[in-house]
Amino acid sequence: MSAAEAAERIARRELSPVDLVEALLARTTRLDPELRVWAHLDAEEARAAARRLADEAARGALRGPLHGVPIGVKDIFHVAGLPTRAGSRVYRSEPTEDATVVARLRRAGAIILGKTHTTEFAYADPAPTRNPWRPTHTPGGSSSGSAAGVAARMVPVALGTQTAGSVLRPASFCGVVGFKPTYGRLSRHGVLPLAWTLDHPGTLTRTVADAALLLSVMAGPDGRNDLCADVPVADYQAAVRDPRPPRVGLVGEVYPERLSTAARTCLGETARRLERAGATLVTLELPPILSAALDTHHLLMASEASAVHLEGIRAQPEVYGPRLRLLVEVGALIPAPAYLRAQRLRRLIRAAVLPLFEQADCLLVPAAPGAAPAGLDSTGDPSFNALWSLLGLPAIALPAGLDPEGLPLGVQLVAAPWREAEVLAAAAWCERVLPPMPAPPG
Amino acid sequence: MSAAEAAERIARRELSPVDLVEALLARTTRLDPELRVWAHLDAEEARAAARRLADEAARGALRGPLHGVPIGVKDIFHVAGLPTRAGSRVYRSEPTEDATVVARLRRAGAIILGKTHTTEFAYADPAPTRNPWRPTHTPGGSSSGSAAGVAARMVPVALGTQTAGSVLRPASFCGVVGFKPTYGRLSRHGVLPLAWTLDHPGTLTRTVADAALLLSVMAGPDGRNDLCADVPVADYQAAVRDPRPPRVGLVGEVYPERLSTAARTCLGETARRLERAGATLVTLELPPILSAALDTHHLLMASEASAVHLEGIRAQPEVYGPRLRLLVEVGALIPAPAYLRAQRLRRLIRAAVLPLFEQADCLLVPAAPGAAPAGLDSTGDPSFNALWSLLGLPAIALPAGLDPEGLPLGVQLVAAPWREAEVLAAAAWCERVLPPMPAPPG
Repeated sequence: MSAAEAAERIARRELSPVDLVEALLARTTRLDPELRVWAHLDAEEARAAARRLADEAARGALRGPLHGVPIGVKDIFHVAGLPTRAGSRVYRSEPTEDATVVARLRRAGAIILGKTHTTEFAYADPAPTRNPWRPTHTPGGSSSGSAAGVAARMVPVALGTQTAGSVLRPASFCGVVGFKPTYGRLSRHGVLPLAWTLDHPGTLTRTVADAALLLSVMAGPDGRNDLCADVPVADYQAAVRDPRPPRVGLVGEVYPERLSTAARTCLGETARRLERAGATLVTLELPPILSAALDTHHLLMASEASAVHLEGIRAQPEVYGPRLRLLVEVGALIPAPAYLRAQRLRRLIRAAVLPLFEQADCLLVPAAPGAAPAGLDSTGDPSFNALWSLLGLPAIALPAGLDPEGLPLGVQLVAAPWREAEVLAAAAWCERVLPPMPAPPG
Repeated sequence: MSAAEAAERIARRELSPVDLVEALLARTTRLDPELRVWAHLDAEEARAAARRLADEAARGALRGPLHGVPIGVKDIFHVAGLPTRAGSRVYRSEPTEDATVVARLRRAGAIILGKTHTTEFAYADPAPTRNPWRPTHTPGGSSSGSAAGVAARMVPVALGTQTAGSVLRPASFCGVVGFKPTYGRLSRHGVLPLAWTLDHPGTLTRTVADAALLLSVMAGPDGRNDLCADVPVADYQAAVRDPRPPRVGLVGEVYPERLSTAARTCLGETARRLERAGATLVTLELPPILSAALDTHHLLMASEASAVHLEGIRAQPEVYGPRLRLLVEVGALIPAPAYLRAQRLRRLIRAAVLPLFEQADCLLVPAAPGAAPAGLDSTGDPSFNALWSLLGLPAIALPAGLDPEGLPLGVQLVAAPWREAEVLAAAAWCERVLPPMPAPPG
């Protein structure tokens, strides 16, 4: 059941939030010992909230469009009353107030079911979470628990964040919808930073309509976070209601050497399927300067993560994972002028890419190099997402099929800045045309 | 004659732009061999423009509020058809279009009389310009020619820029009004950068009303410069017309060890004079974190200037001045995480300072450590201005008297972000109360 469907049935009094929470908790009890989705499950408080919201719904008093809908929150967002651990062996905060986007979800009636596992400080040292499709494979990172929890039907929707590919890659690996709006669209007040000019909050859902629903509740400026832009908010739910066939830009293979045969085949089949259903395909060429994007991204991420974590890592290196340690030590070696030139290069890359969106509503690209790789010591390759994180563009990952081994594959739609309504509409249209993604086994 | 007065007399046909330009050129011919204000005097084009504007004025066709008023432009702003040299031995650009603010001045009827000398790339290696009050003393930097030219009555008004103290310090040393609006208020399209998060365009004038007049013409967002903010523009000219006595914050001595006795005395006398005339004096305390401001400023400036100039300096160090070379080499040693933490520190300092403006319309502080120091191998100490450049606050320097040696002393008014109308109004009120600054000898 999607969040939108749950909210609708609760509003119509066909479903009690209490029963919904109990069903999800029962599923969690059965699956979580293996999948390790939850860093902190808040069962008692969720039950209490469900009872309150059930009473209110019975009286016809609905708080908002998420009345009674349970949600998972990646454990780098502050939630009042729950510890924030951020996947760390050392960090622990006991926030007394919600992150702004969490507060907005709660005000709209959402029930916080718990905090989901994240890789350490949302970088690349794996969380304990496993892929619901095959527990020997990674769910991706860093929003590992959020993606796996939504895929495994432990929770209808969840919050994630993306600095390189941390929403769209795990979404793709777990066969769910991952969405990050434009950089600056959502408040980051109350969210731990990894790299402040790259961090994007985002959502993991099973439907595009749910992504639109969550964005409609969370979007809008925040006086407590001046990096959250005051750009007009569209009616995202209306945008996905009756979408028209989009103009889809095809850009060739950005990183051919990294793309698996299965993902290549899936992308081609997806394009043909969209075209047959009425989408306009437009062949576009990415500007050559884009080849500098991954190096630029890495240099910025390392510098900024180092500004956040260097002191802590120098003080007690042994309590940090090896990947974050390496990133932060590399960042400490980068001279400030190099960092500033990378910011300039980023602006040049962006200026070269933006004109593509005059010819297409969105670009269609792979969401990941392929299906979730085997093993739990890595969370997979974020390169196919990092590109768009660097440029701050809104992007959505859609499940597009299964690979020969039966693992999900995803495609990604990317749009111009602030065009969330357009990319959500295009994704909603594509979703109707693409084969529905089943639930993972179990 | 001020720019406002000249514009008014031209509009009333009491003065011809041709006569005005000729008078200024005659003065330049007499004084410039000693004072070295002009990097490039555009006499013929100014004469031609004056004739065109005189004809138009005769027909009653006025282009705008600066119709026929000559202006000097610091030689780091691009002016179409004139070379930009930036005080460098090596840099030379031949722009075909005006910087945005220059274009706006020209559209309002201003005549570009020429490019004024700047220190090398607007940093600290002196320009050839001398102080009109005493040619053995520095005029200050980096807007050296603009400040000296306005003081010496070679041009009524001029453009400058400030990264540390490059508008307000030379204004103070030369006995004129220096004004920089809030960071991001004016477009920097077509202006050479020194340090992109610190650079402010500003003005050098003889009256506060002229500062308001120039700002009213130049302010407003620029599609070609996204660092120019889209913040509502007030009626700056109305603000200075009939100002009320301001609430003036006194903050004690920020850098007592750097302040000369003459400047200290001048500041005290100014405060008493303002109070006698009806201003409300409010004693405020600067937050202790402000003691980190100069180091923070220097670290940011060095990093950013290094991003701009490192390659050029490494390729041919011998054509750069020793001060810029040192700054840039130091900047190259700063690690990116240190730079990013300095940006964070800057935000903390700003957050600690802004509440002061709830109790006062503006702060009254010295504009410089004292009068222009003797010698031409340094441009003086910008510390008293760098503080406010770091925080991006609007600031204006007013002439406040002469020191025992007969050299000008200045005071500075600083206001909250975007409060240009308020600080101009306060300055206009103070200007009526303070002793008028005579023209320098000669």
